[in-house]
Amino acid sequence: MLPDSMPLADGAAPRARRRHLLDLGGWSRTEVSALFDTSDVMAQVMQRTIKKVPALQGFTVGTLFFEDSTRTRLSFERAARAQSADVIGFAAGGSSLSKGESLKDTLLTIDAMQADLYVVRHHAAGAAHQIARWTDALVVNAGDGRRAHPTQALLDAYTFRQHFPDFDGFEGKRLSIVGDVEHSRVARSNIALWTLLGAEVALCGPRTLLPAPLGERPGLTLTHRVEEALEGAHAVMALRLQTERMAKGLLPSLAEYRQRYQVTTERMRLAHPDALVMHPGPMNRDVELEGVLADSPRSVIEQQVANGVPVRMAVLYTLLVGSR
Amino acid sequence: MLPDSMPLADGAAPRARRRHLLDLGGWSRTEVSALFDTSDVMAQVMQRTIKKVPALQGFTVGTLFFEDSTRTRLSFERAARAQSADVIGFAAGGSSLSKGESLKDTLLTIDAMQADLYVVRHHAAGAAHQIARWTDALVVNAGDGRRAHPTQALLDAYTFRQHFPDFDGFEGKRLSIVGDVEHSRVARSNIALWTLLGAEVALCGPRTLLPAPLGERPGLTLTHRVEEALEGAHAVMALRLQTERMAKGLLPSLAEYRQRYQVTTERMRLAHPDALVMHPGPMNRDVELEGVLADSPRSVIEQQVANGVPVRMAVLYTLLVGSR
Amino acid sequence: MLPDSMPLADGAAPRARRRHLLDLGGWSRTEVSALFDTSDVMAQVMQRTIKKVPALQGFTVGTLFFEDSTRTRLSFERAARAQSADVIGFAAGGSSLSKGESLKDTLLTIDAMQADLYVVRHHAAGAAHQIARWTDALVVNAGDGRRAHPTQALLDAYTFRQHFPDFDGFEGKRLSIVGDVEHSRVARSNIALWTLLGAEVALCGPRTLLPAPLGERPGLTLTHRVEEALEGAHAVMALRLQTERMAKGLLPSLAEYRQRYQVTTERMRLAHPDALVMHPGPMNRDVELEGVLADSPRSVIEQQVANGVPVRMAVLYTLLVGSR
Repeated sequence: MLPDSMPLADGAAPRARRRHLLDLGGWSRTEVSALFDTSDVMAQVMQRTIKKVPALQGFTVGTLFFEDSTRTRLSFERAARAQSADVIGFAAGGSSLSKGESLKDTLLTIDAMQADLYVVRHHAAGAAHQIARWTDALVVNAGDGRRAHPTQALLDAYTFRQHFPDFDGFEGKRLSIVGDVEHSRVARSNIALWTLLGAEVALCGPRTLLPAPLGERPGLTLTHRVEEALEGAHAVMALRLQTERMAKGLLPSLAEYRQRYQVTTERMRLAHPDALVMHPGPMNRDVELEGVLADSPRSVIEQQVANGVPVRMAVLYTLLVGSR
Repeated sequence: MLPDSMPLADGAAPRARRRHLLDLGGWSRTEVSALFDTSDVMAQVMQRTIKKVPALQGFTVGTLFFEDSTRTRLSFERAARAQSADVIGFAAGGSSLSKGESLKDTLLTIDAMQADLYVVRHHAAGAAHQIARWTDALVVNAGDGRRAHPTQALLDAYTFRQHFPDFDGFEGKRLSIVGDVEHSRVARSNIALWTLLGAEVALCGPRTLLPAPLGERPGLTLTHRVEEALEGAHAVMALRLQTERMAKGLLPSLAEYRQRYQVTTERMRLAHPDALVMHPGPMNRDVELEGVLADSPRSVIEQQVANGVPVRMAVLYTLLVGSR
Repeated sequence: MLPDSMPLADGAAPRARRRHLLDLGGWSRTEVSALFDTSDVMAQVMQRTIKKVPALQGFTVGTLFFEDSTRTRLSFERAARAQSADVIGFAAGGSSLSKGESLKDTLLTIDAMQADLYVVRHHAAGAAHQIARWTDALVVNAGDGRRAHPTQALLDAYTFRQHFPDFDGFEGKRLSIVGDVEHSRVARSNIALWTLLGAEVALCGPRTLLPAPLGERPGLTLTHRVEEALEGAHAVMALRLQTERMAKGLLPSLAEYRQRYQVTTERMRLAHPDALVMHPGPMNRDVELEGVLADSPRSVIEQQVANGVPVRMAVLYTLLVGSR
């Protein structure tokens, strides 16, 4: 059984089956759980004075950011270096792309660095999958259009698991995602991961930002009323309005949005008493999320950011040398 | 006694008092002298064929350049790598800053890399101090607005000390700074450092580029006549006219400036016979400094540049592992 | 005998004669052959699981790209890191260049990093030679204007040699270069290298893109008829039309160019039965080279890209530590 996220090298000599991380489609609960256990080890490494291990010595990780993302790039770069891998970066700024090459020719150009693994961020959905077909290297999708951002979902779920000392699994837990779901690859990957792990996911937002097709999946509910979404939630994730991707008039007004959908201290009373407040960033304070709530003890936003390195360390390690 | 430049981590677990290098406010003569001794060791390392030591193996230095500075960035990067530290860079070009985050949220984003020390360059005065309040990492100010550029002052003074085999201290020595003092963080840091070390500092420039408030300090004199400033000086530092920061009409004309304030071979006859000619760069030849003088044996401009690496090696080492 | 490409440090203490790679002027057949043998070793390193050797541990390579080139930069960076050298990058984007410094002052600024070797790419012919005069470091020319791109020529010829198991030398072999020869530093360096090695080189293109002066060299022929150029060729190299450097009206029309000069499967029948198809990239598919031919078994374009790392590893190793 070979899922979409596990293509073989075209015509390559018979090497071991390569495992990319393009989306979470081909992953099992056991595999995710093992990755979280590895993340625990990596989190301990990052607590030491000397935050470095030789686990990936001699490997080269190429960071291919066709679209800018400071947080994700820095987090992956540290995750690679903390394991003694080499990191070589490519950003699409003034590159040879402008000289008329196709994406395939561009990739072959970049592949001149002969990396062992590429971390790919691209504005077009499916770009990471394409690249995985053209290179012998492993590929980790660091966000492709609205499609997927699997490592963000992994670190979100890991942060949730990590927060409870006696965590008894995702079964029966409820995650509410509030905001611009339509344009969010983070939402799509979190839906895939949390439902895989057995949790319920409630999506909430204005009609124009909450597309119906996403709802056709067990464990997933949609609502336009934030009170309904927050009811009994164990984790509430607010999403930024990606206004730069919205057609004019898609959103009535910012004031109206705040009034109806902002995740506030007041509204969090509807959620489970221990419910966590999450945000994948970048955040617009006091728009999708009340500023004081973002700074409150309920908020695990900083832990989400901090977990970026150990979870990505675990991903790189698992793909490059781990037996799964 | 905790000077402004030595804030503690907000609410962090009781760890050792952290020492940033934000400005030279909290430093003593003894501490500066010790740093110069460490710089001597580092300068020897940079004379070897293999210019690398394992002193900072396992540490990560993040270079945060919100404002571009090739020289300073390359110098810090080499200083870190020459001690086997990892370096992860952030430049503010097309970053998530544009997606509406505050500086604090941006810093928390960058802090995803979990560096041990950040080197910060920012166009706003006080930015490095702010960042030091928001992160658990150490912070070195690599220039903030017009405010401070402490490592440049340290390498300037170190170059002066290094030049004299039988250096008997800064007491009784006289540094003249000629040019656009108003817009210069280098001038401000050199004033702070050289007066701390016991030297006299004379500032000289047109009225509009030489603000009165800087003069209220023992050991500091102001003059609008370059001949007066150079009289008996042991070191003369010319500063670039930062015309890009000047309001129109602030400067009468470039020809007039040259005639009245250019540091020339002729004018250097007024200085001490062994006086050194310095320039922190970037230099506009034959504007603030006569070209032939810049290339003469009196000039230590290339040594200033060369000392950037060993002095910054000493700064990184002292902050990260040195006992002070 | 000291060729132009082997200047000594101005007034430096008597150190060993330094060997730059500015162009191929001063090289002998024996030296090129030795470099190819070293490239064979490096190619084997790049076949291993752990593609890293400690050969250049402790050395620092500075990549100075005044003009952008993704492929060349990534290839050199990997070549340095695969031998455990440190790499510090400079790109000319928003640098202090804009503050009014001359190229010499800029180089002295960059030299603050005190690299052991600089890889220089510049839009102006002769820039790498100039830089070699101003620094104590070694210099590798990674492309200067239309003048030279020696490592590209080395990897092209190396790919040719590597392709034949019983290679009996370049004597009697024929390379055809078709396209925009006028603007191509790759063409100039390949002409120099292949004729040095004893091969014949035929240049072909429209009158406006094929300047006469290039023809004054033994072993070199010029023609405006592609059929004549391809006749009996052992390697055919298509070159991109550098339209961004062409004056208006220099080229009749793209359709006409395709019809008369495109390297096609049909036209390749005129060449030697084992003839290779080469392209230094970036390629405009179906303009200078038929797309299906670029993807055919005759094409060694991907090998050219792949050989960038081992050949550049050999160059860096030979210059920095190799005895030649």
